[in-house]
This record gives sequence, structure tokens and C-alpha cells, in this order.
Amino acid sequence: MQIANPHTEFKPGPLTGHGFPDLRPFFAPKAVALLGATEDLGKFGGRCLRQMLDFGFTGDAFPVNPNRPTVFGRPCFPNLSALPARPDHVGIVLPAKACIDAVAECGRLGIPYATVFSSGFGELGTEQTLAAQAELVRVARAGGVRIMGPNCNGMINFVDGFALTSTATISGPRRAAGDIGVVGQSGGAAQVNVMWRAQEMGLGISYQVSSGNDADMDLLDYAAFMLEDAHTKVVLMLAERIRDGARLRLLAARAAELEKPIALIKFGRTEAGARAAASHTGAITGSDAVFDAAARQLGLIRVNDARELYEVAMLLRRRQRPAGHGAAALAISGGNLVALTDQAAGVGIGFPDYAAETAAKLRTLIPGFAAVNNPTDLSAGAIGTKDTFAKAAAIILDDPAVDALVPVITIAPNDDIRSVTALSEASDKPVAILWTGRSAADPTLTPELLVREGHAVFRDALPCAQALARSMDWAAFLRRRTAPPTRPAGLDTARARQLLAAAPAGALTESASRAVLACYGLHGPREGVATTAKDAVAEAAQIAGPVALKILSPDIPHKTEAGGVRLHLQGEEAVRDAFAAVIANARAYAPDARIEGVLVQEMVSGGQEMLLGLTRDITFGPVLTIGFGGTLVEVLRDVTFRLPPVTAVEATEALESLRLAPLLHGHRGAPPCDITALADAIARFSWLATDLGDMIEEIDVNPIAVLPSGIRVLDALVVTRDAAP
Amino acid sequence: MQIANPHTEFKPGPLTGHGFPDLRPFFAPKAVALLGATEDLGKFGGRCLRQMLDFGFTGDAFPVNPNRPTVFGRPCFPNLSALPARPDHVGIVLPAKACIDAVAECGRLGIPYATVFSSGFGELGTEQTLAAQAELVRVARAGGVRIMGPNCNGMINFVDGFALTSTATISGPRRAAGDIGVVGQSGGAAQVNVMWRAQEMGLGISYQVSSGNDADMDLLDYAAFMLEDAHTKVVLMLAERIRDGARLRLLAARAAELEKPIALIKFGRTEAGARAAASHTGAITGSDAVFDAAARQLGLIRVNDARELYEVAMLLRRRQRPAGHGAAALAISGGNLVALTDQAAGVGIGFPDYAAETAAKLRTLIPGFAAVNNPTDLSAGAIGTKDTFAKAAAIILDDPAVDALVPVITIAPNDDIRSVTALSEASDKPVAILWTGRSAADPTLTPELLVREGHAVFRDALPCAQALARSMDWAAFLRRRTAPPTRPAGLDTARARQLLAAAPAGALTESASRAVLACYGLHGPREGVATTAKDAVAEAAQIAGPVALKILSPDIPHKTEAGGVRLHLQGEEAVRDAFAAVIANARAYAPDARIEGVLVQEMVSGGQEMLLGLTRDITFGPVLTIGFGGTLVEVLRDVTFRLPPVTAVEATEALESLRLAPLLHGHRGAPPCDITALADAIARFSWLATDLGDMIEEIDVNPIAVLPSGIRVLDALVVTRDAAP
Repeated sequence: MQIANPHTEFKPGPLTGHGFPDLRPFFAPKAVALLGATEDLGKFGGRCLRQMLDFGFTGDAFPVNPNRPTVFGRPCFPNLSALPARPDHVGIVLPAKACIDAVAECGRLGIPYATVFSSGFGELGTEQTLAAQAELVRVARAGGVRIMGPNCNGMINFVDGFALTSTATISGPRRAAGDIGVVGQSGGAAQVNVMWRAQEMGLGISYQVSSGNDADMDLLDYAAFMLEDAHTKVVLMLAERIRDGARLRLLAARAAELEKPIALIKFGRTEAGARAAASHTGAITGSDAVFDAAARQLGLIRVNDARELYEVAMLLRRRQRPAGHGAAALAISGGNLVALTDQAAGVGIGFPDYAAETAAKLRTLIPGFAAVNNPTDLSAGAIGTKDTFAKAAAIILDDPAVDALVPVITIAPNDDIRSVTALSEASDKPVAILWTGRSAADPTLTPELLVREGHAVFRDALPCAQALARSMDWAAFLRRRTAPPTRPAGLDTARARQLLAAAPAGALTESASRAVLACYGLHGPREGVATTAKDAVAEAAQIAGPVALKILSPDIPHKTEAGGVRLHLQGEEAVRDAFAAVIANARAYAPDARIEGVLVQEMVSGGQEMLLGLTRDITFGPVLTIGFGGTLVEVLRDVTFRLPPVTAVEATEALESLRLAPLLHGHRGAPPCDITALADAIARFSWLATDLGDMIEEIDVNPIAVLPSGIRVLDALVVTRDAAP
Repeated sequence: MQIANPHTEFKPGPLTGHGFPDLRPFFAPKAVALLGATEDLGKFGGRCLRQMLDFGFTGDAFPVNPNRPTVFGRPCFPNLSALPARPDHVGIVLPAKACIDAVAECGRLGIPYATVFSSGFGELGTEQTLAAQAELVRVARAGGVRIMGPNCNGMINFVDGFALTSTATISGPRRAAGDIGVVGQSGGAAQVNVMWRAQEMGLGISYQVSSGNDADMDLLDYAAFMLEDAHTKVVLMLAERIRDGARLRLLAARAAELEKPIALIKFGRTEAGARAAASHTGAITGSDAVFDAAARQLGLIRVNDARELYEVAMLLRRRQRPAGHGAAALAISGGNLVALTDQAAGVGIGFPDYAAETAAKLRTLIPGFAAVNNPTDLSAGAIGTKDTFAKAAAIILDDPAVDALVPVITIAPNDDIRSVTALSEASDKPVAILWTGRSAADPTLTPELLVREGHAVFRDALPCAQALARSMDWAAFLRRRTAPPTRPAGLDTARARQLLAAAPAGALTESASRAVLACYGLHGPREGVATTAKDAVAEAAQIAGPVALKILSPDIPHKTEAGGVRLHLQGEEAVRDAFAAVIANARAYAPDARIEGVLVQEMVSGGQEMLLGLTRDITFGPVLTIGFGGTLVEVLRDVTFRLPPVTAVEATEALESLRLAPLLHGHRGAPPCDITALADAIARFSWLATDLGDMIEEIDVNPIAVLPSGIRVLDALVVTRDAAP
């Protein structure tokens, strides 16, 4: 998959309207200057310039260094003002302090982009170095310069042949450009573990960026450029941190629109544990769990280790769309099929039975091939018949239940291997070649060669199954993707906002909290106020089922003490008697109390206790927590997270993803819970988070009872944002 | 780690006494015959003989084929009787039917070992082929011949240079012998995916076996030979099935004794799901979960994918013993340390803080290296100081909290790489080198070269962390290993055996089931029989806490109906009144009933409901199930398995491994459960399984209540074995 006609082909897309810069001059400048240029290859500036020249940059490369007349035989300039033309992109390899002046000068000269390689900024974490980084950004913004870094290792453009980096991964002849973009903050991890290793196994890279501290531009900006560039089919990302979840959402939406997947590693999973928040729901959360859920929701393909990035890219770059999670596999080696079956099942891939027609065709092809199973072990049947393997594979690929094929090779003659690649070439369905050995006789026919030709070749069953499953997940995500959630009717945002604004700072009372939730249709037990026994009976009749009666008086705070509460009342007579008793008791307890009436309240029993939460994530802002409530919740932590808003369908999926989900379906003879009502409530709650998330630090609805019909909020706490610690 | 002075060095160990054969003549025969020898390399017999000769066999190799006078220039014999000397090992490549006669002839000639390569036996699963396999085994046993196969791909002995196999993995110059043994039933998976791939990455193999159908000898026999052989340090196993759990236990115990680890893949995890048993506990079990638990209990290192086998072997072959799960890591590339931290945390490896002394030494070594953390990023400090990396590593390795070191290399000069290997060479603690790139300038210095020299080199953070964790687990297993569990006092095996024998076939009644359990000290609620009110009061006083009174009469089966039950009684008066009432009610209900007295029974409330089970596993026989009982158990399946017997310490570990374990420690203000009593009960229950497992099909103790003090069996079912379906 080498690019035939290299040239950065970037069309500014809709992201440009959201502040993502047009990085053409950055990635493919006409003129470049390097501050701190030297001929000393022991120095960063020397290696960086030498590599730029060796890599084949065809524009103007201006070394800048006041102490040298020439560098590598080129005229060297004392400063940026002395250059014969304005560079589009300036690399800066100077002591940290001097970087700030250099960026200021870029601003004065109208230079749009600078890469600050130098370290000694935010990464050291001291007050002084953090201040220096802030100053660097301030100066850049004041001058209209966008900067990469500081503390970074630059970028590589394989499409146009421009590199501004010290990495040793590009020494030697320049590798052909490919269709995979790689962005990371780290130098070593992104350039060596991902880019170079991907190239070693036959993949081609379009662009690579090691962006360092991301003080101004960040990972997402470079990824956005790659997405819009015509050469790049897949973007691989290694993120130590992603600052702005809103921008990540924009980027992910654009990736889905362009059908160009982003596969990423998000480092720092253990830091997340340490950052466990102090609040109850916060402790359950942990921001890595939020990131994980968000990635799935946004269609970002999160993987675990560096090699999984390029393994999944091998399939994704082919832009095929498996229609489901059904695969077929075909081999001469039965042991490998057993291994593959295990691995595939572990990642959600099934091996569906073949259609009767497929089985019949296979039997015609191979007489005596009695039991046709999927995976298909040809061991007995295929021996001696030259291209039986390829013919069988073609028949299998035609089966409508088969969404992808895994042909397995161990050690085989070139003809057999080539029959598999011909199949991969011709197929619309993904063909993931599992090749665990080598060519029987030809050392030049290697997995790397096949990958270079565009095939997806895996060396072991686990990575094969993982990569295939992830490409199936991506296709499923694209199929599932619909219009963004629409706002449910009847949400009283204005009233909720009023209630929040009127509340004193900090945690709202339970009743104020309930009132806010009620604006979004999340109600507690049904209730009404009665001033006569007749009213009370009528209210109770409307509620249907047992009720409680509670005296309503601003002067009686302790109702139970006053004999003002009666529980578990059922039937007209019981309600009437209780009404009289409650009134009489209250009068006796506090003769002067103002009595406003009696609260007739539904008594909720049974149902499944769930929890709904809203917390603030440092990256994404308001995040929903959806899970099981009650006493076991802390032990099991059976919760999941979603970015708001969500549709009722997405809410249902979230609920079904919980380990305890069977409890909602009527476990052990219990009646099934009203999942529809709960999902609707979650959708409305998610709009509360969307509309008012800026005013709210935290909401904890725990428990919310899910009854056979309907839901009831049994306890709720809203904490407004200003009051948060 | 090549073997300097090859020669099979096998000392028959204690396993020989348990029926494991002495396989010296099999692996290192003085004379070998091949039935079905030919010069046609398109045929199995041709490839097999050609490879034997090319591989350097120095003994007598006799081709046998009635239709040829010579093969490859050697005299060819018409049959085994015509051979000039008796072979130790005969390879058979004949049509299935002819194999049986050939094995019979081996028997007549006193030939001890035969390998039957031919397929057409049990692997086809038909009545006819299964019968043929049974006949093959019968004939072999009758003649005193031990056979490998049928349907196998033979064996390779790199130590002595003897191969009897058709695999293409050994074509070309013979690879040097090493210290890793590989056994598998499959040809392709064991020979290509594991052996050849391990060799490609620089590891050396001592012996390899692809044993096929395992009709007579099986995987465990070959593994036992490798364990006892002096050259082999690690055995890698790929098992599609293990028939005899008892022999696996013997093998694992011997491996632990010799401190030679067995790492294995057990295929067929998804088959296990399909085999889910019909019974309640059986459905929770699934034999793969049992195998997994058993492997951990026996110290078998179970991995998931083929490459993990040789990855873990790289470290294990060094026979170092990390003292714990604390590691240190050291790099110039910060990004790689972040990645490693995540992966290490995911597999249970921690990075402990350095001792003050270590930190001080590091600061002296690198002035200005203010924050000394583990993992240690030398980026700033180490630049320009030639061997800072190695010196820092040596200081870190000295830290008592550091059990292993991971030095990280990306692209580095040879000197740097060599300073790391020098460290690995000299260290008593494991050094797992994470090398993600290449040598900066020397293409001959490769990871493969370092592995060949004996180092452990990993290309990615995940496999590095996984392999290190598994070697730490192995060391922990060896430390933990103590004398086998001893029988607790007071177990009445004779009485329990009597009860089981006396019971009618099938499920015992609840009271009979309880009686069996009581013989092993697992009791229900405390109770006594009273015939007077005074007795009843005394019994109740002894029980302390609420009691129930129940009429005891063989003529009153429905006690409650008869008014013969009183619950929740507390205090002398209540008991006295209830006694009178129960007697009076019974008399009124059935005036002629024989009344034996009144049962005074402890009322158990609160406590945590757990379950204890005994099921029969197809491989291991009686297996314990330990888990949480009550209504959530089916949803959560929070159970674990152990092979009996276990000590109370092992039982406690099993309990702590459950997800819901915090519930036992007093969750949300509940009093802690008496884990000691439960662990003791589990240990005694495990002896019941050990002593009487052969008579029992299933036991289900569910629930068993774990109180703040003591346990109570609340319900129990014992099913005897004969009656099982």
C-alpha cells in the first residue's frame, strides 16, 4: 500500500471551523529554518538538520546560528530576520529561555508555525518551568504563531519527504510513504515502538508526529490533519493525556464521517487509579474507566500495547466493512484452528455454520469430505488436489453468514501462499491471513512482503483474532451511527436552571434535588396533598397500592415523634382513619402549629435499586454513571459510564452491558423491571447533564427503583458547581 | 544457552514408580526402523527418513519396505524380522489397518517403542475408526510395546541429533540444542508456532514431541522425560486434552520438586462452555474454569497464545527466583516507562519506592537528578555520561525492594546495549530487557543474538510484563509450596462411608445429607430434643439466642399445619409457653400420634450465605466449588474451584480470590464473618471429597451461613455416584 503519487492532499474540513488549524504549511512547508543548526551530529540540532537534508526535503532549508557562516555546505544565517525568504515552519533547538524570544521573533516575522524541541518546560513540573511554558504559549499566541512542543521530537512527512526530528528511526534510505498516520506525545514510543516497528513489518506511514508537552497545539490537531489528508486511511495515536474531551469528540465524529478509524493507546491507566476522587461516585469512577467508555461510545478503537496498533491497522487500512462478527477459518493444520477458535471466542467472533448450499459445494469440491464444519479443517480432503484450498476458500467467502475469512498457513509452498493472497486481493470481505511459519523454500517470500503488498498477515492466533474483532467493531460502530440524540419532549430546562440558581451554594436539600430532577421527568413516589379525609381517600385511590400519610406543617419538623406519620395504608377505611389520627395527633402534639394538610404518598416496595450519577471528568466534563444501586454496589462496582446526551437505545445498551443485567429481566421468578422506563429516564437525565452540566458538580440518584411498571427516584443529591471544593 | 556437551542425560525419577515409562530408548535409540520407508519426498515416509538421516542420527537407521532393495543408498529390509539388530524405536507409516499388524510384530520382536504416524483412527470419530484405535492399543499392550500416536507427527531430539518426523521446521542445518522442551498433540501448532518460532527468536530446544491421538502414551509421559533430563530447564506444553488429572498432579508435583516449570496452553476453552453440565453447580462450573483453577493450584503456568509460551520461557530458563512482585525499570525514553507501568500494574507487578540509600546513591551518581522515582527516567540526567545507565541499574538492582529489573532500550549504540547485557549476565535477580528498536549502527546486534546468548529480550511492554509476572508467580508458588495438606482431626470417615452405603440410590434426603456432612464437622443449626418444658428451657439456654420449637412425631409429617412449630422464641417464659402449646396442639391435631418430644433448634439469622460444592470433573474427578450463595449467585457466578484436599490456608486464599470477598470482612458496618471457621469447614469438606469422592457424584451445600462466630449448614444435598445419570 505505497502511495503512488505522493503530495500532501489536505482539504480543510469542517474541523477548521472549530479551531483546528490548517497544518499544510507545518507538514509540507516551502521553506524551513532551524534555530540551533550545527554540524555536530552529537547535538540535536546537527542530527535534526542532517536528517532533514538526507530525507529529501526539496524546499528551502535555512540553518540559523550566529556563530557559523555555513552548515553542511549551506549558508548559515545569524537570525530569522536575516533569512532570504519567510519560512513556513521554524524548528527551535535553543536553551529553554532563548526559545521564548525565538517564538516572539517568529510572531514579528509572520511565521505561522514553530516546533520547540527544547526541554526544560512543563515536563519538569516546577513552578519556574511551568511559568516558562505558560510564557512561551502567551508569546506564541500574541504573535499569531502556532507551536508544537516544547520538549518534543518533531515530525515526519513521508508523503512529501520532509522530516524535522532527531529520531534515528529514519536514518538510511527513505521508506516509501504509506497510508497510516502516527501521532504521539512521546518520541521513543511513537517513533520506535509504533512507526518503525510498523515499517519493519511492511506497513507504510504517511505522517508521524511526536508532539511533546502539547503546550499550544496538541495531538488532536495533528490527527485532524491526517484525517483530512487523502493519503491517510488510519490514524494511530499514543496519548499520555488528552486535555480537551470536547475536541476529541469533534475529531472522533469527523473520523466517523470520513470512515477513517482512529486506533489509540491511552497511557496512564494506573495514574487514573491514584486520582480516584474523594466522593462516593467519584471513587467508583476513576477517569480511565470514563475514558474507556467514552472511547467506545465515540468509535475510537482503544488497544492495549503498541504492536496492537499496527496489527489492527493492517486490516483497517483496507477499508472493508465486515457485516457482522461471523468469521470462517480454513486450514490444513487442525491444531491452529483449535487455537484460533479459542482466541476468536474470547473477543466476540463467532464461527457460524455454513449454509446448506456452501456445505454442498464443499462436498462436491472434495468428495469424501463428510463433516463440513466451520472452522474448516481440510487436512484429509485437500491433500493432493492442487488448488483445493483456494477453491474451498472462495466457496466459503460466498456464504452470507461469513463476514470475514481467516486462512491459516504454517509452512507452505509459494503456490499455496500465493493462492491465499490472490483470494485476499479479490475479496470484498476482510481476509486476515494467519501465517505462523514461513515459505517452504523461498526465503524472499515473507509476511513483511505480503503486508507491503497490502495484505493483512498475522503471526499468531491472538493478535489475528483481536485485530479482526476490532475491525468488526469499527464496522458495527459505523452501522450503528445515526443522527445525534434528539431532545425528548417536556424537559423544563428553564425551571431547573432557576432552581439551581436559587439554591444556596453546595449540596441541595433532598427535596430541592428531587425538584430539579422532576423538571426532567425523573419523579419520586407519587404523592398529593389532602386537606380532608375525602381528599386523602381520593388521592390514595389514584395512587393505587399502599400509601403513607404524613402531616404537613412548617412547625412540626419531626413528624414521626408527633405521631404524624402512618405507613402501609391500604383501602378507603384505613386511609380515612389514618387521616383523622394524623391530624388529631398533630393538634395534640403542637396545638399552635399551622397545619397545611396531609401528604398522601405512594409506598414503593420491591423493584430493582439502580443508581444514576453525574460527575465531572477532567477531560470530558459532565459524565453519566449508570449502574446497580443498593448495598452491593461498592463491592461489585457494577457501573458503566456514558458521555451525555444519550438516546434511550444507547441507555438500554449501557444497562445490558452491566454484569448484573439479568437482574433487570426478572431473575428467579421476580417480575421483569421496566427497562424502557429506566432507559427513558436515563436519556432525560443525560439531557439534564447536557443542558445544565456547567452549573452542576455532581448528581447522585441512588437508589432509583425500577418497578415492573415505571421508575421512582427514592433518594437524590444535587451539588452545584460553584460550591465544589 | 546452547548445550555444550549434548547427550540425553535422563535419570529415572520417582515418576517411574507411578507408571511413567523410561523413554531413553524412545528419544535416543541406538537403532531405529521406519516402516513405509521410500525415496519419494512427496510421501511422509520419504520425508521422515530423509530428515532422520540429514538430522545426523548416528545409530543404525533401518528402512523397511518389501518393495525396495535400497532407500537413499541404504539396504532396505522387507520386514522387521529381517533386520540385523533389534531397533529400540520403530516409526510406522503404513495404511491404518497395517499399523496394527506392525505393532503386533514389534511386540513379538521385543521392540519397546513404536510411533504410529498414520491417521485414520480415533481422530475421525467413527465407530470403526475408534474400534481400530482400541485394537491398536490392545495389541500394543499385549505385546509390551508403548506407542506414540496414532495420527501424529513424531519427535525431535536436538540433544543427540535424532528426529523422527516429517515437519519442515527442521530442514536445513541442524539447530543447536537448547534447554527448552516442547510437547503438543498437534503437529503444526507445536512444531511451527512454538518450536520453530522460539528458535527464530534465538531460543534453543532440547526435545520436541507432536504426539497426535495419545492413544497409549500421552503428553504427560513425554513431558516427564524432559523434566528428568538434565538439559531441559523448562517444558512448554500445548494440550488439546489432558485425560488423566491424577497423572497431571504427579507431573506437576515432580516439576515443582525439580524446580523446572511447565508452561502450557490448554486449548478448547470454548468446547468447555458447550459441555456445561446440566446440574446447578455443574452449569456454573464448566470444566475449563476447573482446569484453570487446578493449573494455578498445581503451579502450572497457563498462558493464552503460542508466543507467550516461549516469551515466558526466556526468563524461566534462567532459573532465577524473584523474591516478590516488585520491579524496577530504567530508561532514557519516558514514554516507554509509562507504557510499562500500565502493563505491569495490569499483571500484578508493582514498582516499589527505592530505599533512601538507593535514592541517595543515584543522586550522587547523577548530580541534579532531584526526583528519583521508580520507574526511573534518566532522560535528563544520563546524557553525556558514558556508562551512567549501567551504573544506575547496578545501584537499583541492589535495592532490597527490587526483585527484578527492566532496562528499556529503543535505538541505542552497541556499547549501551552491551552494558545492559553485562548487567543481565551478572545479576542474580531477573533482568527482563525491553528492547523495542534496534542497534543504532550494527545490524548484527539483534534481539535474537542476545536471546541466543541467554538473555531475556522482549520487544513490547505487554509481553515483557506478562512474562516477568509469570516468572514471579512461579517463584511465589515454589515459596508457598509446603508439605501436602494433613488430615484434620475428628473426621468420622467410617461413619460417613456407612451412611453413604446405606442410603438408597440417588439423592439422599436432606437429613441424611446433613448427617454425612456432620461426620466431617459441617453442622447445621444447633439443636436438642426436649421431653419436658424444663429440658426445653435448658436446651434453649445452651443455644443462647432465639430458638424454634418443633414437635417430633413420626405420625405428624406436616408440623406447621398441626400447630407444632413456634419460631423466634427468646427467654425462659417464651420457651416454656411454646413447649406447652406445641404439645397441646399436636395432641389436639392427632390424638393418637406418638410424640417423641420437641426439637429445640437454633434460629440462624444474618451471616453471609455461601456455597460449597463437590462435582466430578472429567479430568480431575472430585472438584470443590467454593463461592457465594444466595439469590445472586447465578447472575454473578462468583465461585472458584480447587482440587481436594486443601489446607485451611488454601481455603482462605480461595475465599479471598472471590469478587465479593469484601462482604466477608464486614461490609457497611455488618460484623465480619468467621472466615477461620469457614476455611476450616472447607478444609474438612475437602477431605470428605478426598476420602469418599469415589462414592459421591455431587454435593451441594447451599447455603452455608457464615456467622460472626461459626458456620451453619442450612441446606445440603448429597447424590451418591451409582445413581448418577
